[in-house]
Amino acid sequence: MDITRDKAAMRRWVAERRGLRIGFVPTMGALHAGHLSLVERARPGCDRVVASVFVNPTQFGPHEDYERYPRDLARDADLLATAGCDLVFAPETAEMYAHDAQTTIDVGAMQTVLCGAARPGHFRGVATVVAKLFHLVQPAVAVFGQKDAQQVVILQRMVRDLDFPVELRVAPIVRDADGLALSSRNAYLGPDERHDALLLHAALQAAAAALRDGERAGERIAAAARAVLERGTFLRLDYVAAVDPASLAPLANVTGRVLIAVAAWVGSTRLIDNLVLDVRGTAVREVVLGE
Amino acid sequence: MDITRDKAAMRRWVAERRGLRIGFVPTMGALHAGHLSLVERARPGCDRVVASVFVNPTQFGPHEDYERYPRDLARDADLLATAGCDLVFAPETAEMYAHDAQTTIDVGAMQTVLCGAARPGHFRGVATVVAKLFHLVQPAVAVFGQKDAQQVVILQRMVRDLDFPVELRVAPIVRDADGLALSSRNAYLGPDERHDALLLHAALQAAAAALRDGERAGERIAAAARAVLERGTFLRLDYVAAVDPASLAPLANVTGRVLIAVAAWVGSTRLIDNLVLDVRGTAVREVVLGE
Repeated sequence: MDITRDKAAMRRWVAERRGLRIGFVPTMGALHAGHLSLVERARPGCDRVVASVFVNPTQFGPHEDYERYPRDLARDADLLATAGCDLVFAPETAEMYAHDAQTTIDVGAMQTVLCGAARPGHFRGVATVVAKLFHLVQPAVAVFGQKDAQQVVILQRMVRDLDFPVELRVAPIVRDADGLALSSRNAYLGPDERHDALLLHAALQAAAAALRDGERAGERIAAAARAVLERGTFLRLDYVAAVDPASLAPLANVTGRVLIAVAAWVGSTRLIDNLVLDVRGTAVREVVLGE
Repeated sequence: MDITRDKAAMRRWVAERRGLRIGFVPTMGALHAGHLSLVERARPGCDRVVASVFVNPTQFGPHEDYERYPRDLARDADLLATAGCDLVFAPETAEMYAHDAQTTIDVGAMQTVLCGAARPGHFRGVATVVAKLFHLVQPAVAVFGQKDAQQVVILQRMVRDLDFPVELRVAPIVRDADGLALSSRNAYLGPDERHDALLLHAALQAAAAALRDGERAGERIAAAARAVLERGTFLRLDYVAAVDPASLAPLANVTGRVLIAVAAWVGSTRLIDNLVLDVRGTAVREVVLGE
């Protein structure tokens, strides 16, 4: 497996493989089994798989964890090589952004709701770096994890609106045995905090149970989840919402697909989790976002 | 020469020519010799030349000339075929933009100065449609006319900031024998108005003469141009400015390259023109933007 740190080498690698289909997995490193499932998902129909490792400063707010975000490129590269990656693109910040860069991707109203309300500029930063990476790697396929559901929905919209020649694939959330969704930020959690963190998954299960019991009002489905989250000691809820998975607009009544999304601080760690359900009459089925 | 009206056909045409280098000329149609010089400029080093003809609604303000902008695809296609174009991409508006499109390219502070001050949203619209066209046509080279100097500077910045794998080329302004820069909007001018329109070029020549006479203060160079424009009867000046051609910031003193740009309404027609000069000591030389 090769590792490139600069854009020119990245572009040469792509140019030398013209005509081959590249599958692409953008990451911020600190890899876990969730990321490795994305590599797996990138392979079908692709001749090569590229992963990027880049902790993108423009998607962190001024008081967020950019500085302390875990970084270990050697370990990440080993994991990616074992997973069958052909190339890792791991640029420095100064390589990615000119000092006077000023062009950004504005993803409209969807960037200001849910996580966007608490993290102004976050999705603009995500969309911009993903657009840059798409232009550098020129993938036929790119894979994102459903864990970051709002990111997935926004990038699906970006790809459609800007006509990127890229197929997006979404990989299901990978969970630990106790139900906690894998996240690089789980490393921040102490044992008591981890106990509270499990409430996110339990809350989503409560919302799903309400739907299975016939509840269709978005507000009451979210309330079922909220009741579980209120049991936490170290947990401070940001939001829990039942929204349209295409537009992220709140659903007064669930008639088809619903994205139930939750965000909460546990201690000083911000965690997110979600569930997408497809409702047909009395049948309620878990599905992958956008599939 | 082929003509495609839909994105899927455009993508197929590109896919069938994978490995070939495409030169691309985006236009709004109503073609004149200036546009045809762009086609010529697209050819070196490219295997095929594609032009687009699309009057992009998102770059027109609510009170601008979107409705009356001249449209004649049959004539444009004939001219492009004669100029040696291989394909014309001429989508309808509903094909280009989904009804709920909300992703745009934000080109930062450079979009609010000069023409951007009088045309809010214009350069966001331009950058967004050019990004879409780049993704659909996947050119190795794209050519723009220096006539739209601010557009060129903004697109150069966009390509750099977002790492588009596209080489931008700039073609010099093509003028009528009387000095008027060719523009599709010249068709709106009556004979008396055309007389006033010539003052734009004369004003730029006056600014160049001031530079050649040793004037280096940006304000006084602009004033030399302004004095000429004040002779117009039907002319209402929007701006005349001496700016840095890389950043579009006003130049207090000219020490290297200067973009002298002018915009004025003549009757109900808005016209622009510009000149880029390279100043080395006492030597003043006209150059092409970005070369």
